[in-house]
Amino acid sequence: MGNRIITISREFGSGGRTVGREVAAKLGIPCYDQELIDKIAEKSGYDKAYIQERGEYTASGSWLGNALAMRDFYGQSDQDKLWAVQRAVILELAEKESCVIVGRCADYILRDRADVLSVFVHASIESRAKRIVELYGESDLAPEKRLHDKDKRRQAYYQLYTDTKWGDARHYDVALDSGRLGIEKCVEIIAALY
Amino acid sequence: MGNRIITISREFGSGGRTVGREVAAKLGIPCYDQELIDKIAEKSGYDKAYIQERGEYTASGSWLGNALAMRDFYGQSDQDKLWAVQRAVILELAEKESCVIVGRCADYILRDRADVLSVFVHASIESRAKRIVELYGESDLAPEKRLHDKDKRRQAYYQLYTDTKWGDARHYDVALDSGRLGIEKCVEIIAALY
Repeated sequence: MGNRIITISREFGSGGRTVGREVAAKLGIPCYDQELIDKIAEKSGYDKAYIQERGEYTASGSWLGNALAMRDFYGQSDQDKLWAVQRAVILELAEKESCVIVGRCADYILRDRADVLSVFVHASIESRAKRIVELYGESDLAPEKRLHDKDKRRQAYYQLYTDTKWGDARHYDVALDSGRLGIEKCVEIIAALY
Repeated sequence: MGNRIITISREFGSGGRTVGREVAAKLGIPCYDQELIDKIAEKSGYDKAYIQERGEYTASGSWLGNALAMRDFYGQSDQDKLWAVQRAVILELAEKESCVIVGRCADYILRDRADVLSVFVHASIESRAKRIVELYGESDLAPEKRLHDKDKRRQAYYQLYTDTKWGDARHYDVALDSGRLGIEKCVEIIAALY
């Protein structure tokens, strides 16, 4: 049997990353999240902080602005180059082994494989605000404002590279509200579907 | 403990209705689908065929056209009146007993209740086309065309009365691809979450 992959797309603050880690632990397969960034850094030479930020978020919330900005002679921006490396790394991972891949449009990149279970994890603004303050502490910006900004830039990134709508239920095999169902239930459902 | 409700929104041809019936049977609670139409007919005096069609679909795919069309002196169309009755019947059912309610924007109408599990069932065009031909047979229109038309008019209806986007994962506690997961898996997941 070939490799079976779980992709987890998640809203910032929804706990999707934790869901991914716990599913992977339960199934005894690796989870690529921070490790994905390490691999991309190794392959691209880009700084990890840059990859962390620009491999999922645009600089501003306008995808059109981003599509047009800072292209070189070949019409490529640094972000485009990073996208190409990310894509190659994700395709390579999926060829290599069964695993969980968190974020980075893996759902879109692997969309033509039959052996992928694609998951979207989301939660209300209130529930995510509570979570990010617990995890990352307070900042000058209100948590709702931070979430709104992150949502907008992640959405713009997704739209720019996949030309599909972030968060549309029809793109995923399963979409779960982690705030309403709880992290544990999400992990159970995904692991049971694998 | 109060009543616990499951609302099932579904794409035409996704088998969401079957999922609803099977979940209800498994949990030993009633499922309101055709029965909902009977109740609405009783209360409104509208014809069942009219309710079936206009309680979830607009006449054309444009919500704006629908919003402006055929309003009476009080600014109400027949469709608006039907909406008001549907809303009242659904609120009443949720007060009365634990149940499954299929379609008719019940997810939106009951959105402020904490004891609602809201589910969206969808599937690819290919998978739905296969299902509607099996269930309803061929017609003059290609199944993909019939689906496209139904999708567009249901989407327009939803937008008109709820002012939110049909199919956005973030409106539902759980969204499932019945074509990829199979009806049985969907039933299991929903029943386990109840």
